[in-house]
Amino acid sequence: MIDALLLPLLLQAAPVAAAAALLPSDPLPGDWRAIPDDELLVMTLAGGGTVTIRLAPAYAPRHVANMLALARARWWDATSIYRVQDNWVVQWGGAPTDAEEKPLPAGVAKSPVAEYDLPGAFHGVSIGADPYAGRTGITADSWAVGGSADGRRAWLAHCYGTVGVARDAAPDTGSGAELFMPLGGSARRLDRNYTIVGRVIDGAGQLSGLPRTAAPGGVYLIAAERTPIVSVRLASDLPAVGRPHWQYRSADNPRFAAMVALRQSPKGMVALGGIDVCDVPLGVRRAQ
Amino acid sequence: MIDALLLPLLLQAAPVAAAAALLPSDPLPGDWRAIPDDELLVMTLAGGGTVTIRLAPAYAPRHVANMLALARARWWDATSIYRVQDNWVVQWGGAPTDAEEKPLPAGVAKSPVAEYDLPGAFHGVSIGADPYAGRTGITADSWAVGGSADGRRAWLAHCYGTVGVARDAAPDTGSGAELFMPLGGSARRLDRNYTIVGRVIDGAGQLSGLPRTAAPGGVYLIAAERTPIVSVRLASDLPAVGRPHWQYRSADNPRFAAMVALRQSPKGMVALGGIDVCDVPLGVRRAQ
Repeated sequence: MIDALLLPLLLQAAPVAAAAALLPSDPLPGDWRAIPDDELLVMTLAGGGTVTIRLAPAYAPRHVANMLALARARWWDATSIYRVQDNWVVQWGGAPTDAEEKPLPAGVAKSPVAEYDLPGAFHGVSIGADPYAGRTGITADSWAVGGSADGRRAWLAHCYGTVGVARDAAPDTGSGAELFMPLGGSARRLDRNYTIVGRVIDGAGQLSGLPRTAAPGGVYLIAAERTPIVSVRLASDLPAVGRPHWQYRSADNPRFAAMVALRQSPKGMVALGGIDVCDVPLGVRRAQ
Repeated sequence: MIDALLLPLLLQAAPVAAAAALLPSDPLPGDWRAIPDDELLVMTLAGGGTVTIRLAPAYAPRHVANMLALARARWWDATSIYRVQDNWVVQWGGAPTDAEEKPLPAGVAKSPVAEYDLPGAFHGVSIGADPYAGRTGITADSWAVGGSADGRRAWLAHCYGTVGVARDAAPDTGSGAELFMPLGGSARRLDRNYTIVGRVIDGAGQLSGLPRTAAPGGVYLIAAERTPIVSVRLASDLPAVGRPHWQYRSADNPRFAAMVALRQSPKGMVALGGIDVCDVPLGVRRAQ
């Protein structure tokens, strides 16, 4: 049976006819900008699946610097995805074979200050207020953000696919070695409480489709339930041949704003009034 | 490593000490109310997992009446979960062995009028406005709802675990035979566009943990990828011995309001300001 939920997605996936006119919401070629190879983390899982993370050095420089050092030290290799809590988070980076914590490599700060509340306003497309922020929007460089109504503070927002830094109770106790990704209905209550270091731009389903466990906190009790992480590498450290390249769709242009407006008032549906900042599609594509 | 994301959940799961004083946010015994057995749908999947759905006859009477007839006719038996689109929906009720549509049993209306925009205000706990509704809240009988600011319209909200009626383009083309459950970051844009017939109160992870597919719209291309549905039964049609009984936590009491307030300002965290209506935990428990 065909259903309306399915149709828009199939249409989206259909190839654009050669002669089709551009819509005001379609990106122009120049709207696509390169993600630097040293801001792309490629995580390879047992079984061969890969998860690609775009890092956010402009927003969490200390934690991202840690992550570069961790990747180069191959610290994550042979760790695992050890927690999948339904409607909440998937978490990885533990050392499954050790009861003890795995020592951090040289050059990795154990307690960088938290980086989840940034001075200044964001620039890009404004989406509106919501229960968690006086303003929300998408930055020019394509990050979902919240901000104070007075424009003096801003922060990256926890959406599906966001990569955050797990930590102990104190805000400065996450190094970036242990990471989580929200996979459920809402994780916005983590905004301004956890440092966001990036977002999954490809392969998020490899994480969200993992089996749930009834164990407390979603932490697999049996080692065999965990998904081994084979390797985590910066794209810039991979051989030039076969290295992945990605682009993001920039938001500081009227095409992006038109797409958001269309999303708020979809054709053939009751107009929504507004939209959740996490429900704005942040385009990415592979570069040639 | 212990992390703060994990701790509250572990504490939640810990048994309450016998001598512990009740907090203002703790439910009293009378706050728990029975869900009638004929408002509980038990779906058994291949492999033995079960998914329990609380039906919403007060909000979508025509579609729920259809579903009772479908369950009694065993219409869903040997259908399947045939769609799992990452960060969007899981969908079931198709007839995997037929290219044709499976005929509906006698007594099932093919085109009931849509039931997603209801006259009147809701009563319960008010949560506040959000991008999709002038008001939101939890009804006394524990449903997440949106409503117009003037209190003249209300509707059930699409949250993680909500069960909705898939349909063709026209609003009255869903019978309740094909159903979907949102599993991703936000499905609120479906509010006032799709009829909600219930919500999963147990076993949602059996659906959200299914493998994703890269196929268009998340529809498995290979029959073997689908998860067979063994049976779908009303609890009231199951043998009395072993029949499941469930209760919901009512929201028309100060304990529930205190719990929401606590959720908005969690201990040890930056206060959130507000909360998304889909992020309010709707308590359920098995009755003795």
